[in-house]
Amino acid sequence: MSEQSIGVGLIGCGTVGSGVVELLQEQSERYARRLGCRLELRRVLVRPQDVDYKTERVPRNVLVTDPEAFFATESMPILVELGGGRGAISQFVRRALDMGKHVVTANKALLAAEGAELFALARQRGVSIGFEASCAGGIPLITAINFGLMANRIQALYGILNGTCNYILSQMTSKNAPYATALAEAQTRGFAEADPTLDVGGGDSAHKLAIIASLAFGCQVSDEAIPCTGIDTLDLADVRFGAELGYEMKLLGMAERIDEGNGAPGLSLSVQPGLSLSVQPCFIHREEPLAQVHGSFNAIAIFGHAVGQTVYVGRGAGKEPTASAVVSDVLNIAAGWYPQAFGKMHIWPDQQKPPRLFDPRQVQARYYLRFNALDRPGVMGAIATALGDAGISLSGIIQHESCAGEFVPLVMTTHEARQGPLNDALAKLKQLDFIDGEPVVIRVVEMPPG
Amino acid sequence: MSEQSIGVGLIGCGTVGSGVVELLQEQSERYARRLGCRLELRRVLVRPQDVDYKTERVPRNVLVTDPEAFFATESMPILVELGGGRGAISQFVRRALDMGKHVVTANKALLAAEGAELFALARQRGVSIGFEASCAGGIPLITAINFGLMANRIQALYGILNGTCNYILSQMTSKNAPYATALAEAQTRGFAEADPTLDVGGGDSAHKLAIIASLAFGCQVSDEAIPCTGIDTLDLADVRFGAELGYEMKLLGMAERIDEGNGAPGLSLSVQPGLSLSVQPCFIHREEPLAQVHGSFNAIAIFGHAVGQTVYVGRGAGKEPTASAVVSDVLNIAAGWYPQAFGKMHIWPDQQKPPRLFDPRQVQARYYLRFNALDRPGVMGAIATALGDAGISLSGIIQHESCAGEFVPLVMTTHEARQGPLNDALAKLKQLDFIDGEPVVIRVVEMPPG
Repeated sequence: MSEQSIGVGLIGCGTVGSGVVELLQEQSERYARRLGCRLELRRVLVRPQDVDYKTERVPRNVLVTDPEAFFATESMPILVELGGGRGAISQFVRRALDMGKHVVTANKALLAAEGAELFALARQRGVSIGFEASCAGGIPLITAINFGLMANRIQALYGILNGTCNYILSQMTSKNAPYATALAEAQTRGFAEADPTLDVGGGDSAHKLAIIASLAFGCQVSDEAIPCTGIDTLDLADVRFGAELGYEMKLLGMAERIDEGNGAPGLSLSVQPGLSLSVQPCFIHREEPLAQVHGSFNAIAIFGHAVGQTVYVGRGAGKEPTASAVVSDVLNIAAGWYPQAFGKMHIWPDQQKPPRLFDPRQVQARYYLRFNALDRPGVMGAIATALGDAGISLSGIIQHESCAGEFVPLVMTTHEARQGPLNDALAKLKQLDFIDGEPVVIRVVEMPPG
Repeated sequence: MSEQSIGVGLIGCGTVGSGVVELLQEQSERYARRLGCRLELRRVLVRPQDVDYKTERVPRNVLVTDPEAFFATESMPILVELGGGRGAISQFVRRALDMGKHVVTANKALLAAEGAELFALARQRGVSIGFEASCAGGIPLITAINFGLMANRIQALYGILNGTCNYILSQMTSKNAPYATALAEAQTRGFAEADPTLDVGGGDSAHKLAIIASLAFGCQVSDEAIPCTGIDTLDLADVRFGAELGYEMKLLGMAERIDEGNGAPGLSLSVQPGLSLSVQPCFIHREEPLAQVHGSFNAIAIFGHAVGQTVYVGRGAGKEPTASAVVSDVLNIAAGWYPQAFGKMHIWPDQQKPPRLFDPRQVQARYYLRFNALDRPGVMGAIATALGDAGISLSGIIQHESCAGEFVPLVMTTHEARQGPLNDALAKLKQLDFIDGEPVVIRVVEMPPG
């Protein structure tokens, strides 16, 4: 790419797309100084119904609605895909790679499902895929894992990967707002979609975790392999009991190497360890850096075997932060070094089997439990005994004073326990007449030392 | 570098050096998989008196004490410099660059003083300098600024850049320990040197800030241009009054683009703005991410014009974290992409003048003030009036109850004020007989929005 200018094509010009157009226009001089040549936005492809939506800064001769005209554009070696979704977009991306174009995308759903294929195609064609914007928005997380932490074997990572959920949980915590109220406010303030399912159900976090884990652990992870619990069934009572115990509730995407021997996270030294993956609401101690990340921010704690804990915090979504990541990828590609680095990137490696996923029942962790239990003599003892018989030891108990003879919340935290025996013990307990309904189980995440 | 193995030379084998040797040995297979070829430690140069110090893992035929023998080693395109200091080490680095070797260094003192010359020499010879380990240890900060945030005009950065100081301040805060006690504990626990001057006086932070600011703002900053106040004269009373007001005391390295018009940080849009640089103990609000970084951790908040605030946290020193950064640089050089990227890196650019430093007297900021004032009628009014006459408006006041007629601490916080008029007003106030000694002035840092 030694031309005097480098052509860029853009598919989709919504919120993030228009942010990309603005950055390329406003920072044109700065970028030219860094690169030694100009970036030129050659063509923007939008759907016919979107021609007038957020495209006021796109010159009319650059805007097209016909994919054939778009792909016929000469001298356009970099294609930015911000159309979102799969289907037609997947075909566009494959077509671009096939034509030998570099692709920059923020499309986490596409990469989580088809990343292995798309990366293989890119490697085969000698081009690169920039995907910094697909995970944690503006935080340069992919850059950090791939280059800055290259000397490390990554042991574990814990991420607040969805700003909508973090905003809702922050509102529940700081304002004692029930889930439905906090969601409604997030929707009013533009932090949540009208249909929030993909966010609050955890699916969006699972998409991102699949991409990050594939990169961090050098293996093929698909989002379908990730057990996923959202925040949409959370009860405010648990947020409050957790706060009483010194914990903050966060929706975490977690990926941990697990030691086969003791089921403990983060300590395995084997080359192909068991990998434990999940997205779930968790309690983390108030003093942990991640607990302090509020509102719509994202944050990821990464544990490298040499570096120990590093934490990255920033805006995970929004027009400018996401455009920052997209345009940084474009610049890194245009500068020539990223395509070279891409070939040696350890993500969705060819000819490698999917990771051996660790049996969730065998994972060792601490848990928060809440029973709706009858307040009568012997009940506390019966529950503690049943858990003790399953090898589960309690580390804390809360029972607020109440009138005897009623069902009251009984909160317990456990020492490290395996999930399987815990679930078995809970299944038995909930059959008993002094327990009402399903016990609540929330993982308490203790970060590895580092 | 297409050989089957790539030779690495190491100068200095102390704590970090021996960590580098261990990583290269233990992770040899992993690195070979990533690179497609092996890294080989060809020669380690140590001083004659250090032959047996931490070198037990270095094969005897690799260890040399004669610089001539070291530099005569064939096929050693990458040189890691961990000798520290300047003088002879500077000559070694220049010799290596002159010979067309890439250099990786953790030597912040060397780069802060001679970075512009060394980088120019490297560019001239077509080789690169890796310096991730020179700032903030294991945190991949250089990588983040240089590549991950490339689309951004950096507006401001605020860093906890010295783990020793942060450890001491954390002890003062959490244990109500006076400075001398906290320093002694840091020394006992190995977090502070026997002669702690470079750390506690702020000089080490200034070295790092010079490097980071040169990179972030694309200009020539030398550490000598940075006004520097350490933590060694701090009074525990101020840490405690600050806590009462909701603030944490941190030693911050700060670099801010300043708007000429109103002196406010972080908002300038001009290409060559006034730059305000300083290292000083500051108060930051307890809710800010940086306030939550305790103990020997480092952290940096970076404000990009598009991405907003991003924060990076991790170990700033120590054997493994620093070795992680050094070896990541080695790998990124050996992989071939870093040398290509280095040429386009915007640090100590050739043919560029030093930045226009903003007059510190004109910087707008909030301040914490503590007077030792006589508790008698009219004193509070006289101080508030003198400040008001200088255009300085108060945002808060603390005076604890005491016996009338004695000198008591009187704490005030100001709204935004220019440093010059504030200093002038304080100089006049301290002449008055109801004020005893020098008033304490500590900047209250309000992070830019984002």
